[in-house]
Amino acid sequence: MAAALTADQLIAQHRPTLDQALEAIRTRAYWSPHPEHPKAYGEHGSLDAAAGKAAFDALLGTRLDLDQPGTDDWVGGEVSPYGVELGVTYPHADVDVLLPAMRAGQRAWRDAGPELRALVCVEILKRISDRTHEFAHAVMHTSGQAFMMAFQAGGPHAQDRGLEAVAYAYAEQVRTPGTAEWTKPQGKRDPLALTKEFTPVPRGIALLIGCNTFPTWNGYPGLFASLATGNAVLVKPHPRAVLPLALTVQVARQVLTEAGFDPNLVALAAERGGEGIAKTLAVRPEIRIIDYTGSTAFGDWLEANARQAQVYTEKAGVNTVVVESTGDYQGMLSNLAFSLSLYSGQMCTTPQNLLIPRGGVATDDGHKSYDEVVADLARAVDGLLGDDARANALLGAIVNPDVKARLEAAADLGEVALASREIAHPDFPDAVVRTPVIVKLDGAKPDAEAACMSECFGPVSFAVAVDSATDAVELLRRTIREKGAMTVGAYTTDPEVEQAVAEVCLDEAAQLSLNLTGGVYVNQTAAFSDFHGSGGNPAANSALCDGAFVANRFRVVEVRREA
Amino acid sequence: MAAALTADQLIAQHRPTLDQALEAIRTRAYWSPHPEHPKAYGEHGSLDAAAGKAAFDALLGTRLDLDQPGTDDWVGGEVSPYGVELGVTYPHADVDVLLPAMRAGQRAWRDAGPELRALVCVEILKRISDRTHEFAHAVMHTSGQAFMMAFQAGGPHAQDRGLEAVAYAYAEQVRTPGTAEWTKPQGKRDPLALTKEFTPVPRGIALLIGCNTFPTWNGYPGLFASLATGNAVLVKPHPRAVLPLALTVQVARQVLTEAGFDPNLVALAAERGGEGIAKTLAVRPEIRIIDYTGSTAFGDWLEANARQAQVYTEKAGVNTVVVESTGDYQGMLSNLAFSLSLYSGQMCTTPQNLLIPRGGVATDDGHKSYDEVVADLARAVDGLLGDDARANALLGAIVNPDVKARLEAAADLGEVALASREIAHPDFPDAVVRTPVIVKLDGAKPDAEAACMSECFGPVSFAVAVDSATDAVELLRRTIREKGAMTVGAYTTDPEVEQAVAEVCLDEAAQLSLNLTGGVYVNQTAAFSDFHGSGGNPAANSALCDGAFVANRFRVVEVRREA
Repeated sequence: MAAALTADQLIAQHRPTLDQALEAIRTRAYWSPHPEHPKAYGEHGSLDAAAGKAAFDALLGTRLDLDQPGTDDWVGGEVSPYGVELGVTYPHADVDVLLPAMRAGQRAWRDAGPELRALVCVEILKRISDRTHEFAHAVMHTSGQAFMMAFQAGGPHAQDRGLEAVAYAYAEQVRTPGTAEWTKPQGKRDPLALTKEFTPVPRGIALLIGCNTFPTWNGYPGLFASLATGNAVLVKPHPRAVLPLALTVQVARQVLTEAGFDPNLVALAAERGGEGIAKTLAVRPEIRIIDYTGSTAFGDWLEANARQAQVYTEKAGVNTVVVESTGDYQGMLSNLAFSLSLYSGQMCTTPQNLLIPRGGVATDDGHKSYDEVVADLARAVDGLLGDDARANALLGAIVNPDVKARLEAAADLGEVALASREIAHPDFPDAVVRTPVIVKLDGAKPDAEAACMSECFGPVSFAVAVDSATDAVELLRRTIREKGAMTVGAYTTDPEVEQAVAEVCLDEAAQLSLNLTGGVYVNQTAAFSDFHGSGGNPAANSALCDGAFVANRFRVVEVRREA
Repeated sequence: MAAALTADQLIAQHRPTLDQALEAIRTRAYWSPHPEHPKAYGEHGSLDAAAGKAAFDALLGTRLDLDQPGTDDWVGGEVSPYGVELGVTYPHADVDVLLPAMRAGQRAWRDAGPELRALVCVEILKRISDRTHEFAHAVMHTSGQAFMMAFQAGGPHAQDRGLEAVAYAYAEQVRTPGTAEWTKPQGKRDPLALTKEFTPVPRGIALLIGCNTFPTWNGYPGLFASLATGNAVLVKPHPRAVLPLALTVQVARQVLTEAGFDPNLVALAAERGGEGIAKTLAVRPEIRIIDYTGSTAFGDWLEANARQAQVYTEKAGVNTVVVESTGDYQGMLSNLAFSLSLYSGQMCTTPQNLLIPRGGVATDDGHKSYDEVVADLARAVDGLLGDDARANALLGAIVNPDVKARLEAAADLGEVALASREIAHPDFPDAVVRTPVIVKLDGAKPDAEAACMSECFGPVSFAVAVDSATDAVELLRRTIREKGAMTVGAYTTDPEVEQAVAEVCLDEAAQLSLNLTGGVYVNQTAAFSDFHGSGGNPAANSALCDGAFVANRFRVVEVRREA
């Protein structure tokens, strides 16, 4: 057992980090305390590559006992998209025992106040950061992300998003002072004078419903926003991606214990296959906050049915890139090829519809017809993924059979400009690795519109021929308004087109990346600076991260008395 | 037509006020720019008492033409609770014309940015403030409040709440900078560099559904929070309390026009008797925000059905005062008597249940039995209202026949400790003025519990005999949890009881006033300092005013490009 963590220690160690995070969300300049390079780990208590891999290997086939109350069974069954059976089992909870136990420690956690709660959260993130190599393997073998992406997106980038949520939560809670003296003049009479105490109080127990593709990145904002605002958090991972969040819960419980709090403030709700426990938990009266990433259908169900809770959802959307003109044709092609390939297009931010005027596109390399643009893009993707090692490093594995089925069906939707192909993985023969398909659609045809107006999650994109830039802008507007979008991209050298696209994004509340041709991609956002989603279109009802994401996770109770 | 208002003028005139409001919500010390004393008006362009009365009188029997598009009829029919027919008619809107017209000016309003929007709102409030005497009569003759209360609560206090919302809205929008330069080091390679623009964008059209009792005080927070965050606002007043909000809309349209914006950013939706237009408007797709004060039934309906909108509701609650012991018996009685009498108990913050141990209460004047406490309180109310002139000045008129019917039925619920009596009004013979009734209930009896566990809005309070302080605390907890509470009061000299009551309020998110014996009352809150409601119990899903009240009325759209 490590030495107990005192408030003084936590302040000394982590207050500077919290202050830097607070400054970063104010300036939105680049900042991260979590190294992106795998070689940066191995000192100051962090696991290096070999130790991280060993730690992960040691987990395989074991029971991950979190010492939770009400554990009535052990469940598991994750199979890596790379073909490996993880064989880890997790506590299955009797929620009638677990939920009351989670409430027991809430008073002390509330009384700890915003600063100490924030610093305990930073310590949890620090311990997770130290084990980034171990988490990377856990994320890789649940999401199917390639190792480097699992390392970065599942490690430092997820930790950044968690810390960002802690900073927002802290800032929101300290906007109101702890106490105030209120003195109101009464003319010649004595003034009225009151002493007021203000206490941020939690809503209750928060439920985090994790997703398959980004268990940590999409999970940490809600988890840490709720915990930092005084709530207990029950973590219900996706059945295919339990391990990264189970390890997170383990770390959180350790840190809470060491800091003198009840470990049951964070608990895991793993489930049996087909149990569908999220639906049961979501409407329990104890659950007052829900964070969810996943399908529109279940997200809508939660919003409609979990009326006792504040519900934060990230659902499906249809992401568009308008390709109207460019001053860097090769840069555009490379940038788009990377965006379409990364993690086999299995990001909620991956572009799906590329809207290209059928009359072609003006470029620095001369005018390019619609067919030329599509063919050149196909070649760019082919070139990027021509080497199998590089393809494997970029693509990762197909996360589940549904995505594979959609990929295979996509070829029937139109003329295939780039066919998907299988890639063999040198280390994991059972891994399902596929390159993206690009399908040509004529935007003027109704069936094409039906195809491009619904989300086809996975390595599928549509090169949609449109009549004009105006037509593209109008289709973009309709797509965002009706289907939602996590991202929008546009390539144009025409200020009027740029303005028109920007106006649509402002009107429909979508995040826009313009003319990206270098090493930043439309599907990537950086914590502390970029917003992930807007919360203002159907793809998500909240953004990561802003004031609205944290402000309603707690309430402020005032006690006033005469001074 | 007044001279056009420039941004520079607005900054020079109102930026200091905005800055003071921002400082006030941070420190929560006493502050108000709006004078409470009627005699403070009459200079610098404001109407004095005579001019305000004349302006109100001149409105009677007229058509209030707001020059709104889509006006297809003129409707009215307000009858003052003091018996006067106002005879004012208002535009009835064809919403299929009005709503699109309201969207036309949104882009320019969005592009104006948070500061200019805030200062336009401050100018609107300033013009309303100048007409406080006129508004006071409008509030008096729709709500039934006595003149002085209508003047203060409907005037400066409502304006304070509006300004508070403007300050919160402004602060929230400028938390994210307008632009950011983001530069991410890449080791030996060139850094990645992006330029980012962040724009607060409105959700769409906001709907304010006003209430009968506090049209301005309860209406201004939502109206100004929505307008300051870039939304257009459609004001749907209570059919019995149109005039104060119609005048507000008129002022807002004038100021918007003078500042170069589209007046249709604020519009009125008056309705015919029984038209029930709120239900139709609430589910229109253009309506993205709703603020509502009123019955739990309709508030719940809005929350369940207006799914396309952010819904902020203040509904019914059951307010409790625990009377356990006191060091100032007379002060307590006077304070409670005033709280029960003010505006005939027709405040959402008026105490309903007084929980008193059946074994009595320790006081500075010796031990008092339950019966003595109730009798002494009845005497205190009687004394306070013994003089008809003072009674009229405190009580105001009964706002509608439902309240009168509830008051009359209350005497059957238990032993009447203080009977209600009629008071004649010297100026308005038809005014329905009634003193409050106090009914004794035995908390141990099921029918008593049923009575005290439902809201009996109006001049009715229950002196509930409980077994002990512990029993009182437990009933308090149950009442807040099941029925909600806008306010809780407690009188106790016992630190343990105080602690227990405070714990309940922290657990159940209710605002607590302790041992008030002077000139501050449990049913009053001050803008910039006190929260009205908590948003954490069933009485309201939001508090006035905090970050959560404004943060989701807009979204931030980011446009990023390579630097």
